[in-house]
Order: sequence, then C-alpha cells, then structure tokens
Amino acid sequence: MFSRMVNGIERPLDLLNASKGKEVLVQLKGDKQFVGTLVAFDIHINIVLDNAKEMENGVVKKNIGFSFVRGDTIIFISPASTSLK
Amino acid sequence: MFSRMVNGIERPLDLLNASKGKEVLVQLKGDKQFVGTLVAFDIHINIVLDNAKEMENGVVKKNIGFSFVRGDTIIFISPASTSLK
Amino acid sequence: MFSRMVNGIERPLDLLNASKGKEVLVQLKGDKQFVGTLVAFDIHINIVLDNAKEMENGVVKKNIGFSFVRGDTIIFISPASTSLK
Amino acid sequence: MFSRMVNGIERPLDLLNASKGKEVLVQLKGDKQFVGTLVAFDIHINIVLDNAKEMENGVVKKNIGFSFVRGDTIIFISPASTSLK
Amino acid sequence: MFSRMVNGIERPLDLLNASKGKEVLVQLKGDKQFVGTLVAFDIHINIVLDNAKEMENGVVKKNIGFSFVRGDTIIFISPASTSLK
Amino acid sequence: MFSRMVNGIERPLDLLNASKGKEVLVQLKGDKQFVGTLVAFDIHINIVLDNAKEMENGVVKKNIGFSFVRGDTIIFISPASTSLK
Amino acid sequence: MFSRMVNGIERPLDLLNASKGKEVLVQLKGDKQFVGTLVAFDIHINIVLDNAKEMENGVVKKNIGFSFVRGDTIIFISPASTSLK
Repeated sequence: MFSRMVNGIERPLDLLNASKGKEVLVQLKGDKQFVGTLVAFDIHINIVLDNAKEMENGVVKKNIGFSFVRGDTIIFISPASTSLK
Repeated sequence: MFSRMVNGIERPLDLLNASKGKEVLVQLKGDKQFVGTLVAFDIHINIVLDNAKEMENGVVKKNIGFSFVRGDTIIFISPASTSLK
Repeated sequence: MFSRMVNGIERPLDLLNASKGKEVLVQLKGDKQFVGTLVAFDIHINIVLDNAKEMENGVVKKNIGFSFVRGDTIIFISPASTSLK
Repeated sequence: MFSRMVNGIERPLDLLNASKGKEVLVQLKGDKQFVGTLVAFDIHINIVLDNAKEMENGVVKKNIGFSFVRGDTIIFISPASTSLK
Repeated sequence: MFSRMVNGIERPLDLLNASKGKEVLVQLKGDKQFVGTLVAFDIHINIVLDNAKEMENGVVKKNIGFSFVRGDTIIFISPASTSLK
Repeated sequence: MFSRMVNGIERPLDLLNASKGKEVLVQLKGDKQFVGTLVAFDIHINIVLDNAKEMENGVVKKNIGFSFVRGDTIIFISPASTSLK
Repeated sequence: MFSRMVNGIERPLDLLNASKGKEVLVQLKGDKQFVGTLVAFDIHINIVLDNAKEMENGVVKKNIGFSFVRGDTIIFISPASTSLK
C-alpha cells in the first residue's frame, strides 16, 4: 500500500523510485494524460513508460506503447493504484 | 498556529519545511488547484502530496491520491489551515 | 518612508530586504495579485507572505493566509505603502 | 521486441539509445507529430531524424527528410513499432 | 545627452548603468508598461524603480510607487528622455 | 547525398555541421519558417543564415537576408535538399 | 557588403559583432519589430539599440530611442541593409 510508504519518502524523487515497475498516471501540460508502467526516471523528471496509453476522461484514446516523456512537460505523476479509483 | 511561526521563517523553504505532514493548498499554473498533505519537497519545489485532491471552487473534483508534482508548474503553496477558511 | 530609502538600495534585492515585515503588493503572471506581509525571500525571488489576500480591482477576493509563492510567476513586488494609494 | 527491453533500461536515455536506427514517433508541443528513423540524440534531447515525416491523424502531411529537432519542443518519443498499431 | 553616450557603451548593461537615477520606460511581456526612475539592476535584469507608474497608451493608469520588477518579464528598458517624445 | 551521411552522424550537432554552406529549412515556434544558407551555429542552436527568406505555404513572403536566429525559438532545422521536395 | 562577410563568420555572434554600428532589424516574440543601430550585445543576446523605432508592416509606429532589449524575447536580428529591401 502506498499510503504506508509516506514514512519512507524524504525527497520527492523517493516517490518516483517507489513507483518503478508500477502503473502511474502522468498529467502533462496542455491536458494530455498518460497511464503506463514507470520504467525509469532521471533528475530532470524525464521518464520512460511501458504500455503507455493516452487517456481522455478516463477512457483510453491511443496506445503509445513504450515511451520516453520529457520532464519539462509533466505536471504531476501519481501511482495509479492511488489515483484511479 | 502558523501565524506564530513567522519569526522562525528566515528563508522561503522554511515555510515548506514547517508544513511537512500538514495539509496544504497548491495552486498550479493553468488554474489547477490541489489540496493534500505535504510529504516532501526539494529546492526545485518539486513536492510529494499524500491524499491529493483536485479542487474546483472549493469542491473536490478528483482524487489524485499520492502524487509527485513538478515544481515549475506551481504558483503558490499555502498551509490549508491558514488558507481554507 | 520608502522614498528616503533610495540611497540605501544598490541591488534589486535590497528593496526586498527593506520590505521584510512590511505589507507588499505582488503582481503575478496571468493577472493574479496578492497583498500580504513579506516574511522571507531568496535569490530566485521565491517569497513567503503572511496574511496573503488575493486581490481583484482593489477588492479582497480570497484569503490565502500564510503562503509560499514561487519566484518565476512574479512580475513585480511593491511595498504597499507606496503602491496602494 | 521492445517490451522485452524493459529490464535493460535503467535511465530514460537508455530507451533513446535502444531506439537508434529504429523508427520513432515524436510528439512536439503545439500538436506537431513526426515519424522518422532516430539517428542521434544528446542530453538536451536534441535529436536527428532521417526520413522524417510530419503526421496529422496518422496521415503523412509533409516530408521533412533529414532533420535536427530541438529537444525543448519535444513532449515524448516512442519507438514506432510499439506506438503505431 | 544619451545619444552622446553611445561611445561609452560596450556591453548592454552599460546602458542600464548610465540610466541609474534617470527616468526609464520599461516594456513588460503581456503589454504592461512602466515608467519610473531606475534605482538598481542586476545581471538577471531584475530592476528597482522609484515612482513607478503603469502606463496605457501614454496615460498613467496606476501608481505602483517603489517597485521590484523581475527581469524575466522585461522586453526592453529605454531611457525616457529618448523614448517619450 | 544527405541520406548517405547517416553513418557519419553520431551527435545531433553533426547534422548541423554537415549542413554548413547548404540551404536549410528552419521551422520556428509560432509557425514562422525560414529558408536560407546555414553559415554558423553554436551549442545553443543560435544560427546564422545567409539569403534567408520567410516562407508561407512554400511561397517566399519576405527576404530577411543575412540573419542571426536565436536557438530557443527553433523547432527543427532540415537540409532543404531533403525537405523541399 | 554583408554577403562578402560570410567567410569571416564562424560563430553566430560574429554576425552581431560585424553588425555593430550598423542598422539592424530585430524581430521579437509576439510580433514586435524594431529597427535601430546595434550598439552592444552580450552572450545572452541582450542588445542595446540606438535610434530604435518600433515598426509595423514596414511603417514606423513609435520612436523608442536608446534601448536595452532582453535577449530572451528576440527571434532574429538581421542587418537592415540586407533585410529591408
């Protein structure tokens, strides 16, 4: 459970680290939204998603597949288990 | 009480530090607004919120849950106890 | 009086330093405007305001309370005693 | 197969490295989309594409040919074999 | 006279230095325009203006008074003696 | 032929280097498009074009002549021999 | 003649250096256009223009006079002798 992880998170990147291999919801500037498995990230918040899907109102709009997403277009990243209820 | 904290705040990040574990209101560019518990932050003002909720006119619009928010999309962060009256 | 302070201001941040503990008007990009007491600032012009209020046409729109404002959204900061006449 | 590559990807740029010589889909800010062979990239995510084509709704709009694309206009880069299904 | 100063200006900041204590016209992004006395500036082109006035079509719209203006919102700064004819 | 050059291009700037003295198509943010001879470039992708022409839908709109173009407004640069077919 | 200068230009800033004391056309983001004598520039492409005039469709709209222009608002700078034909 993610809510139990709070104590282990001292820096923001710790959440990304704990989310590796898990499904995340990624909100981009300009209202694009992806769901996919977080494979990798760096300090610029560039990320790699596997099985990425572009979402619109909770519905899959397009399969992007494997994808490198540039950090400066990202608004937030959220473990899907906590955000897709 | 936050108003009594003023004397202890010498640098802006001191307020974020004092807000850890407390509920904050986060205003993003493009009119998005989150409320959640501040878990972590770094010098880029990247933050992690727990129990994050997207707000619209004071009403919860969506549960985001656990969330990493990129600093460069943030306008202001305010302890909810002082801003949500 | 602020107008007498001009001689003491050699670098822009000197004005912010002289405004600590005083009420300031903060103009943000996208037409948001805050009034509040300047508590702290850093070289990125991140600031902390106490008793922050969002203003619209000189009228208080919302109480934000204690607030951390990210520097890169700020257009100008003005001591309220000189700007709110 | 790209999906089998996940284990080899530890940093985001590893995906770009693995995509060299392969066809990629490049989404730019402002809704431009390119398809082309990834020839080179650097840490700013500047890239060179060969046989680049500007796409619109899955249809080729213009042949750009050999092209240097500046990293800061890129939203995501995706191996075409995984995204163009 | 400013036109005689051209020979003394080797770097752009030399013009700002020569304008200290003089009235300047400051054009901001998003069509805001200030007139005021240039008190201080730094390498980020953050500036302090005294007696700042927000202008619209050559008419004073608002007195801002003493003001710190963030450099990254500035388009140009012009000594008023040369620009307000 | 540019397509034969792919093997010699290891970093993105290698394409710009190989394009010196040749005609390039330069796409700027905000839909401006230039055609001109690439004379020089630096790591910020600032470039100098000779005989620059502003294009609109493949038609010359204005002669700009010799021109310094700031890198941060550039989306892509493409050797005209490969893009203007 | 500027066209004869091509051989002497190895880096983009060489064109600005060769344009000192000459009239240049400066295109800003957001469609502003200046014509003026280039007096100075630095590596951020901050420039000083003398006798600057704001142009609209080839017609002088306003005299700006002596002016410091911030580099990050500039799209291109072109020697007027080559661009104003």
